[in-house]
Amino acid sequence: MSRDAELKRILVTGGLGYIGSHVVLSLLLSGRYLPVVIDNCHNAFPEAVKRCNEIARDEMGADAPQATFHRADLREPETIEAVFAEYKAAGGIWGVVHLAALKAVGESSELPTQYYKVNVAGSISLLEAMAKNDCNNFVFSSSATVYGTPAVIPIPETSPLQPESVYGRTKAMVEWILQDICRSGTDERPSPLKAVSVRYFNPAGAHPSGKLGEEPRGKPGNLLPLLAQMAVGREKSELKVFGNDYPGSPDGTCVRDYLHIMDLAEGHVLSLDAMAVAESEKNIFSKCDPKKDGFYRAFNLGRGAGQSVLTMIAAMRKASGFEYKYEIVGRRTGDVPDLTANPALAEAELGFLAKRDLEEMCRDLWNFQTKNPNGYEQTA
Amino acid sequence: MSRDAELKRILVTGGLGYIGSHVVLSLLLSGRYLPVVIDNCHNAFPEAVKRCNEIARDEMGADAPQATFHRADLREPETIEAVFAEYKAAGGIWGVVHLAALKAVGESSELPTQYYKVNVAGSISLLEAMAKNDCNNFVFSSSATVYGTPAVIPIPETSPLQPESVYGRTKAMVEWILQDICRSGTDERPSPLKAVSVRYFNPAGAHPSGKLGEEPRGKPGNLLPLLAQMAVGREKSELKVFGNDYPGSPDGTCVRDYLHIMDLAEGHVLSLDAMAVAESEKNIFSKCDPKKDGFYRAFNLGRGAGQSVLTMIAAMRKASGFEYKYEIVGRRTGDVPDLTANPALAEAELGFLAKRDLEEMCRDLWNFQTKNPNGYEQTA
Repeated sequence: MSRDAELKRILVTGGLGYIGSHVVLSLLLSGRYLPVVIDNCHNAFPEAVKRCNEIARDEMGADAPQATFHRADLREPETIEAVFAEYKAAGGIWGVVHLAALKAVGESSELPTQYYKVNVAGSISLLEAMAKNDCNNFVFSSSATVYGTPAVIPIPETSPLQPESVYGRTKAMVEWILQDICRSGTDERPSPLKAVSVRYFNPAGAHPSGKLGEEPRGKPGNLLPLLAQMAVGREKSELKVFGNDYPGSPDGTCVRDYLHIMDLAEGHVLSLDAMAVAESEKNIFSKCDPKKDGFYRAFNLGRGAGQSVLTMIAAMRKASGFEYKYEIVGRRTGDVPDLTANPALAEAELGFLAKRDLEEMCRDLWNFQTKNPNGYEQTA
Repeated sequence: MSRDAELKRILVTGGLGYIGSHVVLSLLLSGRYLPVVIDNCHNAFPEAVKRCNEIARDEMGADAPQATFHRADLREPETIEAVFAEYKAAGGIWGVVHLAALKAVGESSELPTQYYKVNVAGSISLLEAMAKNDCNNFVFSSSATVYGTPAVIPIPETSPLQPESVYGRTKAMVEWILQDICRSGTDERPSPLKAVSVRYFNPAGAHPSGKLGEEPRGKPGNLLPLLAQMAVGREKSELKVFGNDYPGSPDGTCVRDYLHIMDLAEGHVLSLDAMAVAESEKNIFSKCDPKKDGFYRAFNLGRGAGQSVLTMIAAMRKASGFEYKYEIVGRRTGDVPDLTANPALAEAELGFLAKRDLEEMCRDLWNFQTKNPNGYEQTA
């Protein structure tokens, strides 16, 4: 397609996952980017790319850009190199959105070597492959968990990185590595890498088409997918609320900053847009000292509105009609009382604003769950 | 040899380097360990192992244990796996002393991706290979540079890790990774890994035989090898002293804690000895909380005696008879005023005491330099 030649090709690692697939869709819908998806299918299905392409055709017509998929694993750098090589003749890969990672906080303390291997060593291999292929625009999926237990709520980006889990440390380490690479080199030959870390708060919901959503293997580890699967009758376990004596919370339960998955996904597109601004124009790196900071920035992607666990249960009851029964039990080790973003920097610099509200998140999640009661596999 | 069957086999990564080769020699001389050396020969020569074996025979007789050498690179995990496999039938490898790393602070800010690849990703691969081969004793070569600019001199091990260079961050990250692995697992299946990080202060000198010493490729980056090469007429460049206005120093120049390389090397043997103590007996991990700390400890290896740059120049003049001319220039970015260890913990727990004094360091360095004016390569 001649139109594709004008699009910037973006490698999306982990592009089959919940966040990854919505990022792929947002890239397609932007009309500016052409996603090349890689994933090892550890916890995700190639069906997700098909659905992204289908939604893009539904919304943009038959000549909508279409994502391609390659099965590849960051632990096997030669498979990543092969993908870069494949697109070299066609103009190469302009940028990378790096989401591939192991992501379960609890599991990370049991399997730290695997987490460091995939999340840290895998990122280093990817950055090495990018340098070899002169690909210099990088968006990294970081997490609010890098802040540990923050002193200030809502949390500004200047809050120190003091992660309290192995998972959190893998994310913080990659941020430090990125910054070091961005500010490396000499005066004559500064590093060509530009990088943005986006620190996710709590993504929720699904694309409103009901074709794309969160499809965890096994019992969901996060609250909203668990509530959705309970309401649809797929998950039968009891609902436990860990602690209702947290100070500062309206009802004593933990407070999190939920944002719609499509808002979060669009934050990645905005980050790439910001990196694409010419160096001669005002851009997000204009104020960076090349030696001290490098062309590296980190932004919170959140709504700035904290929601307690009980608020979320009530919102999902409203969306699904399901009467949840829950038990209040003791606090869970490692839970931070409140993780609410200060989203002002991302709004000012990226133009990022999470517009979709809690009702929309729950409605879209429920729409996806009822249309895909058993997930992608069975409907593919 | 029947005697070898009673020795614990120790993989020494980077075992051809300055510190590595003296560690190999100390392991041989201990009569308790049998070193298996791996090295990629990036900055070192196989000749070093031959010399270790020769010194061991000189001191222990014809049936002295002998180290073996394998050329292998941590960036190619299959070469490491092959070494573990080779010794499997013969009882396997009991422990690892991990020294292989890129180590130039200045270069690390120019080539961060390489430093993270070798030092961090390489360590992760090694730890993965160890776990697969049920090898659970690990001594890691860390560095005083993990302390950054410490608030308290002499520096205790409880000083926070706040490294100020890429090199320092690679060392701190591996320490964090080690601790996370040591405290991982579940109550029923805790991690089998025991690890000790040894934080080096400034190693100096050589084995008194004059057969083993520091043999840097190119212009020496450290003060003492530079002084030795200047005195022997090999290095012609001018001597610059960076800053003489540091507060707290007797003459205003930077203060470092030099210790004899054989003392430092013996600290590794003592660390392995400490890890070999049965779990039922009092050992260095007895006070560790398995969940919070894991079986992980970190120790300073230093003398606890700070020496200024000008003191070192005077000491080398005394040893070599060479009249050094030097120029005082401005402070160098990144230099910390004083890095002097508090060595009390290593003495109390490992029985480590750096006995050899500054005169001995300079004498042994000068002995090596005069016997090997052009290094290993030309005399091999």
